[in-house]
Amino acid sequence: MGRTLVKVKYVITCDRKFNVLRRAAIAFEDGIITYVGPEDKTPFSKQYFDEILVEEDGVAIPGLINAHTHAAMNLFRGVCDDLPLKEWLEKEIWPLEAKLSSEDLFYGNLAAFLEMLSTGITTFADFYYFKELIDALKIIPLRAIATVAFLDLVPDGEVYWRRFNELQKYFELADSVEGGLVKVALGPHAIYTCSRELLEKIAEVSEKYMLPVHMHVSETVDEIKFAREKFGKTVVEYLDEIGILNERMIAAHCIHLNEDEIRILGDRRVNCVHCPSSNLKLADGIMPVSRLLKANVNVCLGTDGAASANSLNLFNEMRNTILLQRGISLNPTFPNAREALLMATRNGAKALGLEETVGSIEVGKKADIVLLDGGSPRLLPEHNLVSNIVYSCTPADVLYTIVNGKVLYCRGKFSNINTDSILKIFSERALKLLSG
Amino acid sequence: MGRTLVKVKYVITCDRKFNVLRRAAIAFEDGIITYVGPEDKTPFSKQYFDEILVEEDGVAIPGLINAHTHAAMNLFRGVCDDLPLKEWLEKEIWPLEAKLSSEDLFYGNLAAFLEMLSTGITTFADFYYFKELIDALKIIPLRAIATVAFLDLVPDGEVYWRRFNELQKYFELADSVEGGLVKVALGPHAIYTCSRELLEKIAEVSEKYMLPVHMHVSETVDEIKFAREKFGKTVVEYLDEIGILNERMIAAHCIHLNEDEIRILGDRRVNCVHCPSSNLKLADGIMPVSRLLKANVNVCLGTDGAASANSLNLFNEMRNTILLQRGISLNPTFPNAREALLMATRNGAKALGLEETVGSIEVGKKADIVLLDGGSPRLLPEHNLVSNIVYSCTPADVLYTIVNGKVLYCRGKFSNINTDSILKIFSERALKLLSG
Repeated sequence: MGRTLVKVKYVITCDRKFNVLRRAAIAFEDGIITYVGPEDKTPFSKQYFDEILVEEDGVAIPGLINAHTHAAMNLFRGVCDDLPLKEWLEKEIWPLEAKLSSEDLFYGNLAAFLEMLSTGITTFADFYYFKELIDALKIIPLRAIATVAFLDLVPDGEVYWRRFNELQKYFELADSVEGGLVKVALGPHAIYTCSRELLEKIAEVSEKYMLPVHMHVSETVDEIKFAREKFGKTVVEYLDEIGILNERMIAAHCIHLNEDEIRILGDRRVNCVHCPSSNLKLADGIMPVSRLLKANVNVCLGTDGAASANSLNLFNEMRNTILLQRGISLNPTFPNAREALLMATRNGAKALGLEETVGSIEVGKKADIVLLDGGSPRLLPEHNLVSNIVYSCTPADVLYTIVNGKVLYCRGKFSNINTDSILKIFSERALKLLSG
Repeated sequence: MGRTLVKVKYVITCDRKFNVLRRAAIAFEDGIITYVGPEDKTPFSKQYFDEILVEEDGVAIPGLINAHTHAAMNLFRGVCDDLPLKEWLEKEIWPLEAKLSSEDLFYGNLAAFLEMLSTGITTFADFYYFKELIDALKIIPLRAIATVAFLDLVPDGEVYWRRFNELQKYFELADSVEGGLVKVALGPHAIYTCSRELLEKIAEVSEKYMLPVHMHVSETVDEIKFAREKFGKTVVEYLDEIGILNERMIAAHCIHLNEDEIRILGDRRVNCVHCPSSNLKLADGIMPVSRLLKANVNVCLGTDGAASANSLNLFNEMRNTILLQRGISLNPTFPNAREALLMATRNGAKALGLEETVGSIEVGKKADIVLLDGGSPRLLPEHNLVSNIVYSCTPADVLYTIVNGKVLYCRGKFSNINTDSILKIFSERALKLLSG
């Protein structure tokens, strides 16, 4: 580890002040930020540092936070693009998942991590297979929320109930990744796959251990119908009655909401993860982001898995978040680029219970930092740097991705990783799943 | 020039057969494709070629075609993101345009060309300042449609009428770019800026010289109202009555259309350019692409200018074309990835009157080719290569951009161009426009 100094043209802090600092420097030691400010006021001499990165045209932003994904589903990218969610899940994805080996999942995760690092993602909340996620994080150490999945309205549903007795094992697995990078969340899949009993138990355990709850909420019209027919309520009313809605809830999708539900989500300080690409591709609909923001809901962004959204690219999600709200409201004034950048950084950190850890470039926080190429034609001219990042930036403009003070990606190369070998094995395993 | 052989893992031809050839080769001589097929059947020996490009993981697709943009507006990227079109145009853009010098426009064009090449765009239809476009194309030779703009319902509108007497000058300017890269189009700006007389004259001149007509059509609700109040008709009915709608019409936007208008556009074989990012950002609405496709309208894609869409990235436009149709129709089955790739290639060529020249990788056509990095995590696994390109590919995955047989871009570098110097002057000039 040691001491590193990064000198760049701009630092966009994404803290409460939302400073855009020109000719600025960031210092960090053992993964913790010790200075952010003007380059010429850096309170250390050059000799103090083990490493100095100088990027004349660099633009530093906080590492992007992907608040909902299923990383290993990179194995299924492009498998079946043109089906509604229910059919897609039941006819295509579940049968494929039944064939997955631990090695498949391990390589699926690694491939997803490479993709995420190359697009400036430093933290993600995963919802899939726990053990194989941990194994992969030991090879490529991104910051992650690892979710213990629960669903009991399925054959063999009782196996999930046993997980409550094995929580210690999950905590230990998470801690086995160095650097405190991994935290555990409880993951009730959705209201239509979890019994009320199960949801109540999860609410109780979440309270006891102060664990985030990561859940799919109001994703499809079918789910809304299910709640109405089965409980005579909306999805949000049902969850609220169970007492599972609070600031620890990471609610993915949240598409179909009435005004009452939006008010409840705001009152309970629920975190809503917008996954615009996935929601459109599966023709699920569009989250009412503008209305949620007005109700003081913490909205953050997710890519969902590559099986549904086909890409783990938060630049796309930032851009599309704004474009879609304008498209549906025919109001071109809200939300704006700054709000989208915050959704992909600080709001994501808050949603994942990592508000004190990451999400902004501030002294005391972890050095999870992305350096963009401010000299790219896409980031010029500099009329509005934040707008350029949100509307125009692409993975081609990511120079460095730094997690916990370590450079994991630099100009197309991944540090200490045999990328070609990983991707070759990953690809072969993925193709075999479909042919076998 | 000379003879070049390109060997890649895949060639996606985008011709009528839409072949996906594995372990394939493309040969071209003096900018014309002479062979496309299996590598081991290449009908020439190695010695025959002056240059051999081997990309083990390469995926060749036809150069992307940006069928509607205002290249030099890169000068205004991010200037004013949060206004409706009318205000944006009248209060922000027009006053800025009044200050533009020829040098500003020249550098604005060059910066846009660099951005387009790095995203795999080889051909574009421009609608802005003619002379400065030509000057820039002499430095960076993309293929282009240069539009002679016409609008007479503005102060000094009569100056545009004089352009009919100067057509020879425009033809000569276009021909002054080597390699036959530039063709001329007539550009009536829109129904609310052009008199009926002007539109009739343009229809007549277009017929006489067989020139494309490049026009903004049904972009905003205000335009629809204008047509209804002024002519008692829809925009398309009005244009049809004038006789300007035919297979030479490149109609940008086409958002607000009733069923009659869609039928007329299909019957007249009009080409409609979908610019989803711009249309959403300005809150104009969403083109009814699925309905237009069903009416046999030739739909192609455009980025619009960087002042409105903030990015000249056709990968975004391909992806969003599909996502948006699914979002508005709640039907996840149509259109699909192949249709989006065709919109960005063959359909674009047809729209621009370049059907015999580019838009597919076929013997006899020009060698306008993009090589993608099939080894990128974004393009793996290979369950569905076309889907990966449309949904997941980004400018980071563009290895080579080849126009007319010449490599203009390779792995982040532009051939024979002092990129840093161009972008520095461009940026300074752009900032000065706003400060001065």
